[in-house]
Amino acid sequence: MTLLSGPPRVVAVGAAMFADSLAAQAVPVQQVDWRPPLGDEGVETDLARVLADPRLATANATAVGRLLAAGAELVDVRPASEALGLARGSFLHAGPPISWDRASGPMRGALIGAMLLEGLAATPEEAEKSLASGTGLSWEPCHHHRTVGPMAGVVSPSMWMFELRDPVHGGTAWCSLNEGLGKVLRYGAYGPEVIERLHWMSDVLGPLLQKAVRARESTPVDVKAIAAQMLQMGDEGHNRNRAGTLMFLRELLPTLIDSGAPSSDVAEAAKFIGGNDHFFLNLGMPACKLACDAARDVPGSSLVVAMARNGTDFGIQVSGTGDRWFTGPANTPEGLYLGAFGPEDANPDIGDSAITETGGIGGFAMAAAPAIVRFVGGEVGDAIEATRLMYEVTLAENPTYQIPVLGFRGSPTGIDVTLVTRTGILPHINTGMAGKVAGTGQVGAGLVNPPASIFPDAVAALAELAPPLG
Amino acid sequence: MTLLSGPPRVVAVGAAMFADSLAAQAVPVQQVDWRPPLGDEGVETDLARVLADPRLATANATAVGRLLAAGAELVDVRPASEALGLARGSFLHAGPPISWDRASGPMRGALIGAMLLEGLAATPEEAEKSLASGTGLSWEPCHHHRTVGPMAGVVSPSMWMFELRDPVHGGTAWCSLNEGLGKVLRYGAYGPEVIERLHWMSDVLGPLLQKAVRARESTPVDVKAIAAQMLQMGDEGHNRNRAGTLMFLRELLPTLIDSGAPSSDVAEAAKFIGGNDHFFLNLGMPACKLACDAARDVPGSSLVVAMARNGTDFGIQVSGTGDRWFTGPANTPEGLYLGAFGPEDANPDIGDSAITETGGIGGFAMAAAPAIVRFVGGEVGDAIEATRLMYEVTLAENPTYQIPVLGFRGSPTGIDVTLVTRTGILPHINTGMAGKVAGTGQVGAGLVNPPASIFPDAVAALAELAPPLG
Repeated sequence: MTLLSGPPRVVAVGAAMFADSLAAQAVPVQQVDWRPPLGDEGVETDLARVLADPRLATANATAVGRLLAAGAELVDVRPASEALGLARGSFLHAGPPISWDRASGPMRGALIGAMLLEGLAATPEEAEKSLASGTGLSWEPCHHHRTVGPMAGVVSPSMWMFELRDPVHGGTAWCSLNEGLGKVLRYGAYGPEVIERLHWMSDVLGPLLQKAVRARESTPVDVKAIAAQMLQMGDEGHNRNRAGTLMFLRELLPTLIDSGAPSSDVAEAAKFIGGNDHFFLNLGMPACKLACDAARDVPGSSLVVAMARNGTDFGIQVSGTGDRWFTGPANTPEGLYLGAFGPEDANPDIGDSAITETGGIGGFAMAAAPAIVRFVGGEVGDAIEATRLMYEVTLAENPTYQIPVLGFRGSPTGIDVTLVTRTGILPHINTGMAGKVAGTGQVGAGLVNPPASIFPDAVAALAELAPPLG
Repeated sequence: MTLLSGPPRVVAVGAAMFADSLAAQAVPVQQVDWRPPLGDEGVETDLARVLADPRLATANATAVGRLLAAGAELVDVRPASEALGLARGSFLHAGPPISWDRASGPMRGALIGAMLLEGLAATPEEAEKSLASGTGLSWEPCHHHRTVGPMAGVVSPSMWMFELRDPVHGGTAWCSLNEGLGKVLRYGAYGPEVIERLHWMSDVLGPLLQKAVRARESTPVDVKAIAAQMLQMGDEGHNRNRAGTLMFLRELLPTLIDSGAPSSDVAEAAKFIGGNDHFFLNLGMPACKLACDAARDVPGSSLVVAMARNGTDFGIQVSGTGDRWFTGPANTPEGLYLGAFGPEDANPDIGDSAITETGGIGGFAMAAAPAIVRFVGGEVGDAIEATRLMYEVTLAENPTYQIPVLGFRGSPTGIDVTLVTRTGILPHINTGMAGKVAGTGQVGAGLVNPPASIFPDAVAALAELAPPLG
């Protein structure tokens, strides 16, 4: 395990050709565009105080050590009402807390869809009116309930959830089942076909998966092992989950076929899962959530344990500052668009799926997935460079998540807010793009960065908690 | 389609650092270790005559154009007795023709196993005695029957075969079903567990696959499309077929589940296929066979249309010289060994699986599969370099088989015996290694080259068929 150490780093400022050549020859050099530190004048004092905190090195070693050590096994599939005790009229959503009046189109669309699914409204208009008044309804971040949700991340009581457990630290995390791409609830669509699919998922798919997962109680599916293998097969685990989905299907199918369920249902489920290259995303996300949760609440640690977006705000949480969110306005991703959609159709960044980058895969492991540039844009060299740059702002190289083309180097894992603030290098996030008008669905996929201000904000909060200087 | 043209090639002799840097920056440079041309003094006259043949350029363009254009659809699964008219006592085997007295251990072992499977002998000793006498028995190369067989490649009448069709040129090709790794017939093992597995494959797996494949008659599985996708997922199609196998499983499973067959059989088949990362090899091989067969018999063409090994001899066939084999002693692969096996246990190169390299994948597409070095040995850089070098001896870049890490450059496809002879660069082949003692099974996996002499031999034969000089 390479942790907080390893061979000396060569940091090359400016001379890109030189750095590229060395790097291509597997010399661990990092090309750093020189940029000023983030934040205003006060940031240097804050940084000095945090870096002088005698707890820092040990706290970060502890936190990132837990993150790397966490396991992830699929132990159950059950409805949110049961798994999370979610009551009628209660919803979860992606990102930091958000009120209806500040909620973006796709967040509103997904909540409208969830109202329809739960029979709390007969029409979208009625749902919208109820949500705006808020009477008898409530919504909270998924992250406040050990849950993660891609895109709008809306969870309602009747949705079925994957339940994962970390056998090392004992944590539990949940995520809904992936609906596919295009017109789907998590992208803010709520048309009849969306609701119908969700009903089938609750009535057929969820119970089937439950049967298979429970039948494997003594040998649960090792989600972390699949995530590790998918990086050897061209996936990065956020926007490319093709191999992961196939391996999950392979793991579960024999049990599913032998479950005694009607073979037409099993065939339909196999077709649904096999036909959705993103199905594994909703398993990889809670696996990363387990790892990040294991690293929470280490006093003095500057490790990021959550990056999450609600479509309006981008928020991070940091190990040493508990459950506090540091938020700023979400940027709009840039990338490739579906059909006739263009940049003007895209909503700002949304979803808890940046938990993959927080856990060291996704945009941080793009070098493992060169073919992803066909989905998010850019050149193969950009994908490799994106991963290389992330070593500058992370605390460790992940011994489980290895990148073949970098000579099996561990993926850059464990974002440190002090490193981000000092270098000005922002985390790379691969993401889907939702249409900004409620009801639209997906419009594309691309790349995005968090707003710069949230990292010095987190440093300032750590500084307040650090012992006084001198 | 890049065919016989494209941007000018930079050929760098010697200065490796320079070439590596350029290449890493996606400049299409090839590093060529300078080496003398292959063959003895006569080779220059032969080469001159072949290169002066006015038919050469057009013949090669035609031949490689056919190779690139060929499709591959899975149209049936049925026993060899029916598909190939193989009669009791008749066998097929890998590589060029071979007599019992010259046959290697694994070839003998596989023939012994086939005798036991067919009930032509009660014990291995009895089988061996019959095979040595030859009475009432016969064996011919798979390649003489539009068939390819991995490793020993032994086919007997009761074995079930994949039947693939090329919808573009109308060709048909066959290959047996893959048994998995370790102690298996194709590696020369013939113990009771080997024969028992083959019986299950004939009794259960074959008929099940037949049902599913025939149910998809109007939308046959597109094997070439899967092969193209697997190169985007870390497979090279010879020694790594993990993603290909999973995609094939996904394609066929819904039909299989819905086939009305007992669900325990379907579950067992799903487990068998899913548990054998090499299952797709026996589909990729006949897909490449179809492509290579489409390129046969173009007068004047110096394109290699088959490379095949019987464990004793390595043979090639060339488009312009019909069915003639050019053979030389098979080399012994070098790589990684299973368990306690070592180099002294390995048999010389064996199998028709080099049809993958002949078709532009396998060792020619190693850059698409950096993780393969964990199976065959070497470093990631070697895998990328292996592919780069193959552009020097091939006629085209395959528009279907693209290599992400090389910026989606088409894989080097279409070996030209004149280019091999002139440059001294021998084709790279990824391969399994069989134990040299009959009955052992697999001992490892690694890399191997053909014997150098067969390329100038083919050039000499082309020269004889070319118009006289001057």
